[in-house]
Amino acid sequence: MSIDRFKVLFHINDSAKWPVVLTNITNFLNDVGQENPLVEVVANGEGVTPFGSKPALREQQKGCSLSRETLETELQRLAAQGVDFAFCRNALRAQSIPEENLPSFIRVVPAGITEIARKQAEGYAYIKP
Amino acid sequence: MSIDRFKVLFHINDSAKWPVVLTNITNFLNDVGQENPLVEVVANGEGVTPFGSKPALREQQKGCSLSRETLETELQRLAAQGVDFAFCRNALRAQSIPEENLPSFIRVVPAGITEIARKQAEGYAYIKP
Amino acid sequence: MSIDRFKVLFHINDSAKWPVVLTNITNFLNDVGQENPLVEVVANGEGVTPFGSKPALREQQKGCSLSRETLETELQRLAAQGVDFAFCRNALRAQSIPEENLPSFIRVVPAGITEIARKQAEGYAYIKP
Repeated sequence: MSIDRFKVLFHINDSAKWPVVLTNITNFLNDVGQENPLVEVVANGEGVTPFGSKPALREQQKGCSLSRETLETELQRLAAQGVDFAFCRNALRAQSIPEENLPSFIRVVPAGITEIARKQAEGYAYIKP
Repeated sequence: MSIDRFKVLFHINDSAKWPVVLTNITNFLNDVGQENPLVEVVANGEGVTPFGSKPALREQQKGCSLSRETLETELQRLAAQGVDFAFCRNALRAQSIPEENLPSFIRVVPAGITEIARKQAEGYAYIKP
Repeated sequence: MSIDRFKVLFHINDSAKWPVVLTNITNFLNDVGQENPLVEVVANGEGVTPFGSKPALREQQKGCSLSRETLETELQRLAAQGVDFAFCRNALRAQSIPEENLPSFIRVVPAGITEIARKQAEGYAYIKP
Protein backbone atom coordinates (compact mmCIF):
# COMPACT_ATOMS: atom_id res chain seq x y z
CA MET A 1 0.00 0.00 0.00
CA SER A 2 1.32 3.40 -0.92
CA ILE A 3 0.81 6.00 1.78
CA ASP A 4 0.21 9.55 0.56
CA ARG A 5 1.36 11.10 3.77
CA PHE A 6 2.23 9.35 7.00
CA LYS A 7 0.49 10.67 10.09
CA VAL A 8 2.02 9.40 13.31
CA LEU A 9 1.38 10.22 16.95
CA PHE A 10 3.81 9.26 19.72
CA HIS A 11 2.44 9.05 23.26
CA ILE A 12 4.82 9.50 26.19
CA ASN A 13 3.80 9.38 29.86
CA ASP A 14 7.13 8.27 31.36
CA SER A 15 10.11 10.60 31.26
CA ALA A 16 12.54 7.68 30.95
CA LYS A 17 11.12 7.07 27.48
CA TRP A 18 12.25 10.41 25.96
CA PRO A 19 15.51 8.99 24.54
CA VAL A 20 13.54 6.19 22.84
CA VAL A 21 11.01 8.66 21.44
CA LEU A 22 13.84 10.80 20.03
CA THR A 23 15.51 7.79 18.40
CA ASN A 24 12.21 6.51 16.99
CA ILE A 25 11.34 9.84 15.38
CA THR A 26 14.85 10.39 14.02
CA ASN A 27 14.90 6.93 12.44
CA PHE A 28 11.41 7.40 11.07
CA LEU A 29 12.23 10.75 9.46
CA ASN A 30 15.41 9.31 7.98
CA ASP A 31 13.40 6.44 6.53
CA VAL A 32 10.47 8.29 4.99
CA GLY A 33 11.97 11.72 4.35
CA GLN A 34 11.50 14.83 6.41
CA GLU A 35 8.99 16.65 4.22
CA ASN A 36 6.53 13.83 4.00
CA PRO A 37 5.21 12.89 7.42
CA LEU A 38 3.04 14.61 9.98
CA VAL A 39 4.50 13.72 13.37
CA GLU A 40 3.08 14.71 16.73
CA VAL A 41 4.24 13.89 20.25
CA VAL A 42 1.69 14.03 23.06
CA ALA A 43 3.21 14.13 26.56
CA ASN A 44 1.05 13.64 29.62
CA GLY A 45 1.56 12.25 33.12
CA GLU A 46 5.26 11.88 33.88
CA GLY A 47 6.14 12.60 30.27
CA VAL A 48 6.15 16.31 31.12
CA THR A 49 8.26 15.89 34.27
CA PRO A 50 11.64 16.85 32.74
CA PHE A 51 10.32 20.40 32.39
CA GLY A 52 9.66 20.74 36.10
CA SER A 53 11.44 23.24 38.29
CA LYS A 54 13.75 20.91 40.19
CA PRO A 55 15.63 19.14 37.42
CA ALA A 56 18.34 17.47 39.48
CA LEU A 57 15.98 15.78 41.91
CA ARG A 58 13.48 15.03 39.20
CA GLU A 59 15.95 13.34 36.87
CA GLN A 60 17.21 11.16 39.68
CA GLN A 61 13.73 10.08 40.57
CA LYS A 62 12.22 9.70 37.16
CA GLY A 63 15.03 8.11 35.25
CA CYS A 64 15.30 10.31 32.15
CA SER A 65 18.94 9.86 31.21
CA LEU A 66 19.11 13.17 29.32
CA SER A 67 19.67 16.49 31.01
CA ARG A 68 16.89 19.01 30.49
CA GLU A 69 19.22 21.08 28.31
CA THR A 70 20.04 18.17 26.02
CA LEU A 71 16.41 17.11 25.83
CA GLU A 72 15.30 20.64 24.95
CA THR A 73 17.98 20.89 22.24
CA GLU A 74 16.87 17.61 20.73
CA LEU A 75 13.19 18.54 20.79
CA GLN A 76 14.03 21.90 19.20
CA ARG A 77 15.91 20.09 16.42
CA LEU A 78 12.86 17.91 15.70
CA ALA A 79 10.45 20.85 16.00
CA ALA A 80 12.52 22.63 13.32
CA GLN A 81 11.80 19.60 11.10
CA GLY A 82 8.08 19.99 11.65
CA VAL A 83 7.45 17.69 14.62
CA ASP A 84 4.59 19.01 16.75
CA PHE A 85 4.87 18.74 20.55
CA ALA A 86 1.68 18.87 22.62
CA PHE A 87 1.87 18.81 26.42
CA CYS A 88 -1.10 18.09 28.68
CA ARG A 89 -2.23 21.00 30.87
CA ASN A 90 -3.60 18.63 33.51
CA ALA A 91 -0.18 17.03 33.88
CA LEU A 92 1.60 20.38 34.06
CA ARG A 93 -0.79 21.61 36.77
CA ALA A 94 -0.58 18.38 38.76
CA GLN A 95 3.20 18.80 38.86
CA SER A 96 3.14 22.59 39.40
CA ILE A 97 5.05 23.22 36.17
CA PRO A 98 4.32 26.75 34.91
CA GLU A 99 3.51 26.83 31.20
CA GLU A 100 5.95 29.74 30.85
CA ASN A 101 8.74 27.29 31.71
CA LEU A 102 8.20 25.43 28.48
CA PRO A 103 10.10 26.28 25.29
CA SER A 104 7.94 28.23 22.85
CA PHE A 105 7.76 25.37 20.32
CA ILE A 106 5.79 23.26 22.82
CA ARG A 107 2.03 23.62 22.53
CA VAL A 108 -0.13 23.11 25.63
CA VAL A 109 -3.41 21.24 25.15
CA PRO A 110 -6.26 21.12 27.71
CA ALA A 111 -6.11 17.32 28.03
CA GLY A 112 -3.58 14.95 26.49
CA ILE A 113 -6.05 12.09 26.21
CA THR A 114 -8.46 14.20 24.16
CA GLU A 115 -5.63 15.18 21.84
CA ILE A 116 -4.67 11.53 21.36
CA ALA A 117 -8.29 10.52 20.67
CA ARG A 118 -8.81 13.39 18.23
CA LYS A 119 -5.66 12.66 16.24
CA GLN A 120 -6.48 8.97 15.90
CA ALA A 121 -9.94 9.97 14.64
CA GLU A 122 -8.09 12.09 12.06
CA GLY A 123 -6.18 9.03 10.86
CA TYR A 124 -2.98 9.28 12.86
CA ALA A 125 -1.27 6.02 13.76
CA TYR A 126 -0.69 5.64 17.52
CA ILE A 127 2.69 4.55 18.81
CA LYS A 128 3.59 4.05 22.47
CA PRO A 129 7.39 3.71 22.76
CA MET B 1 -11.72 18.51 12.90
CA SER B 2 -14.93 18.30 14.84
CA ILE B 3 -15.57 14.92 16.41
CA ASP B 4 -19.21 13.83 16.60
CA ARG B 5 -18.57 11.44 19.41
CA PHE B 6 -15.26 10.37 20.89
CA LYS B 7 -14.68 6.63 21.11
CA VAL B 8 -11.73 5.73 23.30
CA LEU B 9 -10.35 2.41 24.51
CA PHE B 10 -7.87 2.16 27.38
CA HIS B 11 -5.75 -0.99 27.59
CA ILE B 12 -4.34 -2.03 30.96
CA ASN B 13 -2.20 -5.14 31.54
CA ASP B 14 -0.26 -3.96 34.60
CA SER B 15 -2.08 -3.38 37.88
CA ALA B 16 0.29 -0.55 38.83
CA LYS B 17 -1.28 1.47 36.00
CA TRP B 18 -4.80 1.61 37.46
CA PRO B 19 -4.28 5.00 39.16
CA VAL B 20 -3.05 6.46 35.85
CA VAL B 21 -6.02 5.00 33.97
CA LEU B 22 -8.41 6.50 36.52
CA THR B 23 -6.77 9.92 36.26
CA ASN B 24 -6.71 9.79 32.45
CA ILE B 25 -10.40 8.94 32.18
CA THR B 26 -11.43 11.51 34.79
CA ASN B 27 -9.49 14.27 33.03
CA PHE B 28 -10.86 13.18 29.66
CA LEU B 29 -14.48 13.21 30.85
CA ASN B 30 -13.95 16.61 32.45
CA ASP B 31 -12.53 17.92 29.18
CA VAL B 32 -15.10 16.63 26.70
CA GLY B 33 -18.19 16.29 28.87
CA GLN B 34 -19.60 13.15 30.37
CA GLU B 35 -22.47 12.56 27.95
CA ASN B 36 -20.42 12.71 24.83
CA PRO B 37 -17.78 9.99 24.79
CA LEU B 38 -17.83 6.23 24.56
CA VAL B 39 -15.09 5.00 26.89
CA GLU B 40 -14.07 1.39 27.38
CA VAL B 41 -11.35 -0.12 29.52
CA VAL B 42 -9.99 -3.54 28.55
CA ALA B 43 -8.00 -5.28 31.29
CA ASN B 44 -5.97 -8.38 30.54
CA GLY B 45 -2.81 -9.96 31.92
CA GLU B 46 -1.89 -8.40 35.26
CA GLY B 47 -4.48 -5.69 34.77
CA VAL B 48 -7.04 -8.00 36.38
CA THR B 49 -4.80 -8.94 39.32
CA PRO B 50 -6.28 -6.51 41.90
CA PHE B 51 -9.47 -8.59 41.82
CA GLY B 52 -7.68 -11.75 42.89
CA SER B 53 -8.44 -13.53 46.13
CA LYS B 54 -5.35 -12.60 48.10
CA PRO B 55 -5.38 -8.83 47.99
CA ALA B 56 -2.67 -8.07 50.55
CA LEU B 57 -0.03 -10.27 48.99
CA ARG B 58 -1.09 -9.31 45.50
CA GLU B 59 -0.86 -5.56 46.09
CA GLN B 60 2.59 -5.90 47.55
CA GLN B 61 3.78 -7.89 44.59
CA LYS B 62 2.09 -6.07 41.78
CA GLY B 63 2.48 -2.49 42.86
CA CYS B 64 -1.05 -1.17 42.56
CA SER B 65 -1.04 1.63 45.12
CA LEU B 66 -4.80 1.54 45.58
CA SER B 67 -6.54 -0.93 47.86
CA ARG B 68 -9.04 -3.16 46.14
CA GLU B 69 -11.85 -1.35 47.94
CA THR B 70 -10.71 2.07 46.73
CA LEU B 71 -10.16 0.80 43.21
CA GLU B 72 -13.60 -0.78 43.10
CA THR B 73 -15.22 2.43 44.36
CA GLU B 74 -13.42 4.45 41.70
CA LEU B 75 -14.37 2.05 38.90
CA GLN B 76 -17.97 2.08 40.11
CA ARG B 77 -17.96 5.88 39.97
CA LEU B 78 -16.76 5.80 36.34
CA ALA B 79 -19.13 2.97 35.41
CA ALA B 80 -21.99 5.14 36.68
CA GLN B 81 -20.82 7.75 34.15
CA GLY B 82 -21.02 5.22 31.34
CA VAL B 83 -17.49 3.84 31.23
CA ASP B 84 -17.51 0.19 30.12
CA PHE B 85 -15.12 -2.24 31.82
CA ALA B 86 -14.21 -5.46 29.99
CA PHE B 87 -12.00 -8.05 31.69
CA CYS B 88 -10.27 -10.90 29.84
CA ARG B 89 -11.48 -14.39 30.76
CA ASN B 90 -8.11 -15.93 29.87
CA ALA B 91 -6.41 -13.65 32.38
CA LEU B 92 -8.96 -14.37 35.09
CA ARG B 93 -8.55 -18.14 34.61
CA ALA B 94 -4.76 -17.96 34.50
CA GLN B 95 -4.87 -16.23 37.89
CA SER B 96 -7.67 -18.39 39.33
CA ILE B 97 -9.92 -15.38 39.84
CA PRO B 98 -13.58 -16.48 39.91
CA GLU B 99 -15.79 -14.31 37.73
CA GLU B 100 -18.27 -14.11 40.63
CA ASN B 101 -15.62 -12.15 42.53
CA LEU B 102 -15.94 -9.24 40.13
CA PRO B 103 -18.35 -6.38 40.73
CA SER B 104 -21.44 -6.65 38.54
CA PHE B 105 -20.54 -3.62 36.42
CA ILE B 106 -17.49 -5.46 35.05
CA ARG B 107 -18.14 -7.39 31.86
CA VAL B 108 -16.08 -10.53 31.11
CA VAL B 109 -14.98 -11.05 27.50
CA PRO B 110 -13.58 -14.32 26.10
CA ALA B 111 -10.28 -12.71 25.06
CA GLY B 112 -9.08 -9.18 25.79
CA ILE B 113 -7.02 -8.97 22.59
CA THR B 114 -10.05 -9.76 20.43
CA GLU B 115 -12.03 -7.06 22.22
CA ILE B 116 -9.24 -4.52 21.60
CA ALA B 117 -9.00 -5.48 17.91
CA ARG B 118 -12.77 -5.32 17.45
CA LYS B 119 -13.14 -1.91 19.06
CA GLN B 120 -10.35 -0.39 16.97
CA ALA B 121 -12.09 -1.79 13.86
CA GLU B 122 -15.19 0.05 15.11
CA GLY B 123 -13.27 3.33 15.21
CA TYR B 124 -12.15 3.46 18.83
CA ALA B 125 -8.86 5.23 19.54
CA TYR B 126 -6.39 3.03 21.43
CA ILE B 127 -4.58 4.40 24.46
CA LYS B 128 -2.04 2.48 26.56
CA PRO B 129 -1.39 4.43 29.78
CA MET C 1 -20.16 -5.48 14.56
CA SER C 2 -19.06 -8.43 12.53
CA ILE C 3 -15.43 -8.31 11.48
CA ASP C 4 -14.62 -9.89 8.11
CA ARG C 5 -11.01 -10.44 9.00
CA PHE C 6 -9.13 -9.24 12.04
CA LYS C 7 -5.91 -7.36 11.35
CA VAL C 8 -3.77 -6.94 14.45
CA LEU C 9 -0.28 -5.55 14.99
CA PHE C 10 1.68 -6.17 18.19
CA HIS C 11 4.52 -3.76 19.00
CA ILE C 12 7.36 -4.92 21.22
CA ASN C 13 10.35 -2.80 22.22
CA ASP C 14 11.23 -4.50 25.52
CA SER C 15 12.52 -8.05 25.51
CA ALA C 16 10.86 -8.78 28.86
CA LYS C 17 7.51 -8.52 27.06
CA TRP C 18 8.05 -11.48 24.72
CA PRO C 19 6.25 -13.99 27.01
CA VAL C 20 3.24 -11.67 27.20
CA VAL C 21 3.22 -11.22 23.41
CA LEU C 22 3.30 -14.99 22.93
CA THR C 23 0.43 -15.52 25.37
CA ASN C 24 -1.62 -12.71 23.83
CA ILE C 25 -1.26 -14.07 20.30
CA THR C 26 -1.95 -17.66 21.36
CA ASN C 27 -5.11 -16.65 23.21
CA PHE C 28 -6.20 -14.47 20.31
CA LEU C 29 -5.76 -17.25 17.74
CA ASN C 30 -7.61 -19.67 20.00
CA ASP C 31 -10.46 -17.19 20.30
CA VAL C 32 -10.96 -16.19 16.67
CA GLY C 33 -9.61 -19.21 14.83
CA GLN C 34 -6.25 -19.57 13.20
CA GLU C 35 -7.28 -19.10 9.57
CA ASN C 36 -9.08 -15.87 10.06
CA PRO C 37 -6.74 -13.16 11.38
CA LEU C 38 -3.78 -11.31 9.96
CA VAL C 39 -1.31 -10.95 12.81
CA GLU C 40 1.98 -9.10 12.66
CA VAL C 41 4.60 -8.48 15.35
CA VAL C 42 6.93 -5.51 14.93
CA ALA C 43 10.02 -5.60 17.15
CA ASN C 44 12.25 -2.57 17.51
CA GLY C 45 14.53 -1.16 20.22
CA GLU C 46 15.17 -3.78 22.90
CA GLY C 47 12.52 -6.03 21.42
CA VAL C 48 15.21 -7.48 19.12
CA THR C 49 17.78 -7.95 21.91
CA PRO C 50 17.16 -11.70 22.53
CA PHE C 51 18.66 -12.36 19.09
CA GLY C 52 21.96 -10.71 19.99
CA SER C 53 25.22 -12.62 20.12
CA LYS C 54 25.70 -12.69 23.87
CA PRO C 55 22.54 -14.37 25.09
CA ALA C 56 23.57 -15.09 28.68
CA LEU C 57 24.59 -11.55 29.48
CA ARG C 58 21.74 -10.14 27.48
CA GLU C 59 19.04 -12.15 29.20
CA GLN C 60 20.35 -11.20 32.59
CA GLN C 61 20.34 -7.55 31.70
CA LYS C 62 17.14 -7.31 29.75
CA GLY C 63 14.87 -9.56 31.70
CA CYS C 64 13.42 -11.87 29.05
CA SER C 65 12.60 -14.97 31.06
CA LEU C 66 12.73 -17.27 28.02
CA SER C 67 15.96 -18.68 26.64
CA ARG C 68 16.69 -17.73 23.05
CA GLU C 69 16.04 -21.33 22.03
CA THR C 70 12.62 -21.44 23.65
CA LEU C 71 11.70 -18.05 22.25
CA GLU C 72 12.73 -19.06 18.74
CA THR C 73 10.73 -22.29 18.99
CA GLU C 74 7.66 -20.37 20.11
CA LEU C 75 8.00 -17.78 17.35
CA GLN C 76 8.46 -20.56 14.79
CA ARG C 77 5.26 -22.19 16.04
CA LEU C 78 3.33 -18.94 15.55
CA ALA C 79 5.01 -18.22 12.19
CA ALA C 80 3.79 -21.65 11.01
CA GLN C 81 0.28 -20.43 11.86
CA GLY C 82 0.73 -17.36 9.68
CA VAL C 83 2.00 -14.78 12.17
CA ASP C 84 4.36 -12.32 10.46
CA PHE C 85 7.45 -11.14 12.36
CA ALA C 86 9.08 -7.86 11.29
CA PHE C 87 12.29 -6.72 13.00
CA CYS C 88 13.66 -3.17 12.73
CA ARG C 89 16.99 -2.85 10.89
CA ASN C 90 17.93 0.27 12.88
CA ALA C 91 17.58 -1.68 16.12
CA LEU C 92 19.59 -4.63 14.81
CA ARG C 93 22.41 -2.32 13.69
CA ALA C 94 22.42 -0.32 16.91
CA GLN C 95 22.93 -3.59 18.80
CA SER C 96 25.37 -5.11 16.27
CA ILE C 97 23.07 -8.05 15.61
CA PRO C 98 23.81 -9.52 12.14
CA GLU C 99 20.67 -10.15 10.11
CA GLU C 100 22.03 -13.61 9.27
CA ASN C 101 21.64 -14.47 12.98
CA LEU C 102 17.87 -14.27 12.68
CA PRO C 103 15.73 -17.29 11.88
CA SER C 104 14.54 -17.23 8.27
CA PHE C 105 10.91 -16.66 9.18
CA ILE C 106 11.79 -13.21 10.57
CA ARG C 107 11.54 -10.38 8.06
CA VAL C 108 13.77 -7.32 8.45
CA VAL C 109 12.21 -3.93 7.73
CA PRO C 110 14.16 -0.68 7.23
CA ALA C 111 12.44 1.07 10.15
CA GLY C 112 10.03 -0.45 12.66
CA ILE C 113 8.15 2.81 13.18
CA THR C 114 7.40 3.12 9.46
CA GLU C 115 6.09 -0.44 9.43
CA ILE C 116 3.81 0.31 12.40
CA ALA C 117 2.50 3.49 10.77
CA ARG C 118 1.92 1.78 7.44
CA LYS C 119 0.03 -1.14 8.94
CA GLN C 120 -2.25 1.12 10.97
CA ALA C 121 -2.97 3.06 7.75
CA GLU C 122 -3.94 -0.31 6.25
CA GLY C 123 -6.47 -0.88 9.03
CA TYR C 124 -4.46 -2.93 11.49
CA ALA C 125 -5.33 -2.52 15.17
CA TYR C 126 -2.32 -1.55 17.30
CA ILE C 127 -1.63 -3.39 20.54
CA LYS C 128 1.26 -2.68 22.90
CA PRO C 129 1.55 -5.53 25.41
